[in-house]
Amino acid sequence: MAAADLDHLIKLLARLPGFGPRSARRAALFLIKHPDAVGEPLARAIGRAVENVKPCVTCGNLDTDDPCAICSSVKRDRGLICVVEGVADLWALERSATFGGLYHVLGGTLSALDGVGPDDLSIAKLVERAGNELVREVILATNATVDGQTTAHYIADRLAGSGVEISGLAHGVPMGGELDFLDDGTLQAALKARKPL
Amino acid sequence: MAAADLDHLIKLLARLPGFGPRSARRAALFLIKHPDAVGEPLARAIGRAVENVKPCVTCGNLDTDDPCAICSSVKRDRGLICVVEGVADLWALERSATFGGLYHVLGGTLSALDGVGPDDLSIAKLVERAGNELVREVILATNATVDGQTTAHYIADRLAGSGVEISGLAHGVPMGGELDFLDDGTLQAALKARKPL
Repeated sequence: MAAADLDHLIKLLARLPGFGPRSARRAALFLIKHPDAVGEPLARAIGRAVENVKPCVTCGNLDTDDPCAICSSVKRDRGLICVVEGVADLWALERSATFGGLYHVLGGTLSALDGVGPDDLSIAKLVERAGNELVREVILATNATVDGQTTAHYIADRLAGSGVEISGLAHGVPMGGELDFLDDGTLQAALKARKPL
Repeated sequence: MAAADLDHLIKLLARLPGFGPRSARRAALFLIKHPDAVGEPLARAIGRAVENVKPCVTCGNLDTDDPCAICSSVKRDRGLICVVEGVADLWALERSATFGGLYHVLGGTLSALDGVGPDDLSIAKLVERAGNELVREVILATNATVDGQTTAHYIADRLAGSGVEISGLAHGVPMGGELDFLDDGTLQAALKARKPL
């Protein structure tokens, strides 16, 4: 249908999450239409990121430096470790700009169905980090899904007796959320944890 | 939030059509997670396509060769020219594998609102091509939108008197289409153009 170079580009673009064959074709046309503004810079940016960005050996965050900027920052509270499933979750918390401690990226959740056990996640490393005498609290910020909560409970068990405080994110009505659109579980949690105004 | 290389990559990905900041972050993580299978090949593919793929001087199709593979093929009927708005439309017709003639890519539609006039499209070139004695028929396959049909009428006027036959795509019920979900215009067109079974 198109030139081999174009076909190859479209096939690779279609492998990106959120892209199908149709959107890949659109993106390929866009890249060729804007070679200087997007096409060439994007080719270089992908190459550079793939080459330079690596997971931090300590926390699993992605950065060009190792240890990452968060682990090596003198401004972060080394007594707090926030445990997240993936780097996207870490980014989301950083955007909220309310957490000043360190992170620990698990690299997924426990899942019997997908055959993911404790050894497939960065849990031993977390237990080791929590053993550091500086650490006061571990915040389990896995997703509020069945797998996420199972993983949080497993980690809480593993950390029990280590002397660090273990906490989880609050559940409730999201900001801007309409009660009519919320599931029963969220409403129950929001009612149970109601606060005096 | 993330390393400068990552931030830069995410910003460029977010400029792709169909991508927003969120999907760009997901794609960036995916690229770094799969450097060998997707990341590096994609970087190379974009670079190569941007460098090598150019519009065909004759028809406007995108190809690494000029004239393009369609224009230079000896198997295509040089008496038929199918006029489309963009390369994506040309690809769609090629996928249907029912057209054996040549194409002409306009590069858009006439649009008073967007200030697109006849000189901004490849119309003069089409009139010149239609003047070739080999050409028997010009099929106006612009989209069935107001702008697309306006453009088709304008081109039909320009080609009137050139001696070539001018045709347009048939309107009707799309394959797999349910009448209940079709607009009135399509149903009217399908009824008017009804055929004996």
